[in-house]
Amino acid sequence: MKVEIISIGAELLIGRILDTNTAYLSAELQEIGCEVCRHTTVGDNRRDILDAIKAATGRAEVVIITGGLGPTRDDLTREVVAEFCGAPLVENAAAAENLRRRFSRRGPAMPTNNLAQAYIPRRSEPIHNPRGTAVGFMVRKGPCELVVMPGVPAEMKAMFETTVRPRLAERVQGVTRMRHLRCFGIGESLLGEKLGDLMREDANPRVGTQVHGGIIAVRLVAKAATKADADALLDASVAEVRARLGGEVYSDADETLAENVAALLQRRGDTLAVAESCTGGLICDMLTDVPGVSRCFLSGYVCYSNEAKIRELKVPAELIEQHGAVSREVAEALARGARRESGADFGLAVTGLAGPTGATETKPIGLVYISLADARHVVTETIRLHQDRRTIKDRAAKHALNLLRRRLIGADRKRKE
Amino acid sequence: MKVEIISIGAELLIGRILDTNTAYLSAELQEIGCEVCRHTTVGDNRRDILDAIKAATGRAEVVIITGGLGPTRDDLTREVVAEFCGAPLVENAAAAENLRRRFSRRGPAMPTNNLAQAYIPRRSEPIHNPRGTAVGFMVRKGPCELVVMPGVPAEMKAMFETTVRPRLAERVQGVTRMRHLRCFGIGESLLGEKLGDLMREDANPRVGTQVHGGIIAVRLVAKAATKADADALLDASVAEVRARLGGEVYSDADETLAENVAALLQRRGDTLAVAESCTGGLICDMLTDVPGVSRCFLSGYVCYSNEAKIRELKVPAELIEQHGAVSREVAEALARGARRESGADFGLAVTGLAGPTGATETKPIGLVYISLADARHVVTETIRLHQDRRTIKDRAAKHALNLLRRRLIGADRKRKE
Repeated sequence: MKVEIISIGAELLIGRILDTNTAYLSAELQEIGCEVCRHTTVGDNRRDILDAIKAATGRAEVVIITGGLGPTRDDLTREVVAEFCGAPLVENAAAAENLRRRFSRRGPAMPTNNLAQAYIPRRSEPIHNPRGTAVGFMVRKGPCELVVMPGVPAEMKAMFETTVRPRLAERVQGVTRMRHLRCFGIGESLLGEKLGDLMREDANPRVGTQVHGGIIAVRLVAKAATKADADALLDASVAEVRARLGGEVYSDADETLAENVAALLQRRGDTLAVAESCTGGLICDMLTDVPGVSRCFLSGYVCYSNEAKIRELKVPAELIEQHGAVSREVAEALARGARRESGADFGLAVTGLAGPTGATETKPIGLVYISLADARHVVTETIRLHQDRRTIKDRAAKHALNLLRRRLIGADRKRKE
Repeated sequence: MKVEIISIGAELLIGRILDTNTAYLSAELQEIGCEVCRHTTVGDNRRDILDAIKAATGRAEVVIITGGLGPTRDDLTREVVAEFCGAPLVENAAAAENLRRRFSRRGPAMPTNNLAQAYIPRRSEPIHNPRGTAVGFMVRKGPCELVVMPGVPAEMKAMFETTVRPRLAERVQGVTRMRHLRCFGIGESLLGEKLGDLMREDANPRVGTQVHGGIIAVRLVAKAATKADADALLDASVAEVRARLGGEVYSDADETLAENVAALLQRRGDTLAVAESCTGGLICDMLTDVPGVSRCFLSGYVCYSNEAKIRELKVPAELIEQHGAVSREVAEALARGARRESGADFGLAVTGLAGPTGATETKPIGLVYISLADARHVVTETIRLHQDRRTIKDRAAKHALNLLRRRLIGADRKRKE
């Protein structure tokens, strides 16, 4: 099934932002067996939008349009689509109700121009937006179906996943099923070597990798006549990938490292406290993205200054003087301190140099010490990262969670023995 | 000068890679005053490439094409452009020489299909590639100029910078200049009402908005004969927007709220400590993304459990029992405690319900208390958010930073009086 994607927005044409929506949609459409033939980007300009829609609908069976659905005057998409379809814009009751509900919860009266967002072309079918106020819609024009969604990535993705993807998948012949295995800490090229022969273009399931934020997702896509056939193909292939990658795979669910670690802690009834220097609160932030994490996560100490390390976690001042705040010794003292002060079962600590300044002759930017303390031991991992400040923080936080994860699955295994 | 960009490559249509070339070119072209009107991406397909080139040359004065210039059979760009221009492909002596030199340095004999890369349409002008073997070229077809470059980003950029940009800059009449004003805490639709008449499509400067993570960027783009004229237009328009939006604008630079707050603190020589319950470390994370923030940010306390609130920040247990952990009283005690325990000038605290569970009859999900303590006072803001857990954390963290920012600019004003 031939699909074209049109993205609308002046911000894309001036190169201020990357068109991640179109890349996301392309990858997802490819997965369900659609053939994406063209991407077009035009600005907030009536004639250009209309012209792009006319051309695309003349070539493709489905045209997906993102952007230009907001409440302001430069949002032209819904008007132009209505004009193209020869259908007037009419208020959609469910959408208007959703808008009023979202605004009434916020308190102040809804600005009247917001109601524009509830108007969609007559005979079009609304796409519910679980994440915001802009309404999407699907409408047929001749043999072609237009799918119109807002440009805000989180809203567009939620709408695509809940409504658009299932609908399009139905129209593609056969079934396509997909699974992901998530890894952290193994390089993409090493992983490519281990999985090489499974990644052939004509393989079924087709195995590919996607890297996002240091997490590698091994994606398996099977095509077959029935769901059961596709799932059988996937089961065998997943087993093979797991056999080759072992403990590098942290999950076969769509979950973060923090979600995985929180579940492991809760299964054991263990608790955690975290001391963060260079990661500056990011490990705590990742953990507290997990609902209900308060059952296992007790306290976080963002000890950014030496004084805080000494005051909050009783790191001896001499230790910092002698070895420096970025050292194995201080990392261990922080981990022990976090555990002791909070009364948690595990203390996890990170200290390092996130840059861009602060490097010394012996301590380069990206040097990070990660320590994990339990009742008996402290283990420390030294890593060297090579990215910008934000990415160093992110990867150091994930390495810390991964160190704890490996400890928890190791301990689980021992208990079973 | 109207420009269109065409990128060619199957890898773009399956969403494997983001089209960073097009974003780069768009930003660069905008800078030199070109108007980028459309992006088109097509695959390695003769008909689609020809069709895209025909359409683009019918609309634009310059069409820039990237990709499909390699030596393999699916690289079709040079053949299709030659066909479109009605000019046969001929070997370019300089390009062939460059190819032979590059290969002789590598040792093994050059595969013969590589010589295809030295062929360009007759009467076209080669663009030297200082970084690789693919040759680019510029060729006129009627009133339109086609610029053809390889898809490898480093090669394309080098060719654009050394040859293409200077050439195009010569042809542009007038200049385009751009500014951004960043706001937080005002809704996009309310902002649209306040700025409505400035956002007309034919206005100069043209005013538009972009929202990302709750931050609204008001973008002003001015066109004029000279840089000075464009800047004068922008100055007047920026003053008008500022007059309408007042303190809602936090910055006219490309900076985050945390960067803005860190700079304000450092200018005053003030220090900060943060106590986080529902934001779970995110405020600390945002602050520590700012290099050198240790000069003003002393400590963060992620007091996720009641015990941590009592133990770390001496919140009275009775207070939590009486009012609940999510209450004005506990927020104030956390802010005072963070300030007192750390010795900072300001204590900033957040407690709230990030969901998805934990709501009570009187305390709904999204209810957040934010308190700011200095030596004399504590002020508290109560907000109600309506998003998912992650977004509630994010917006609550930004509201907290914005409360501090408003206090700091208010205090700055008082000092001047």
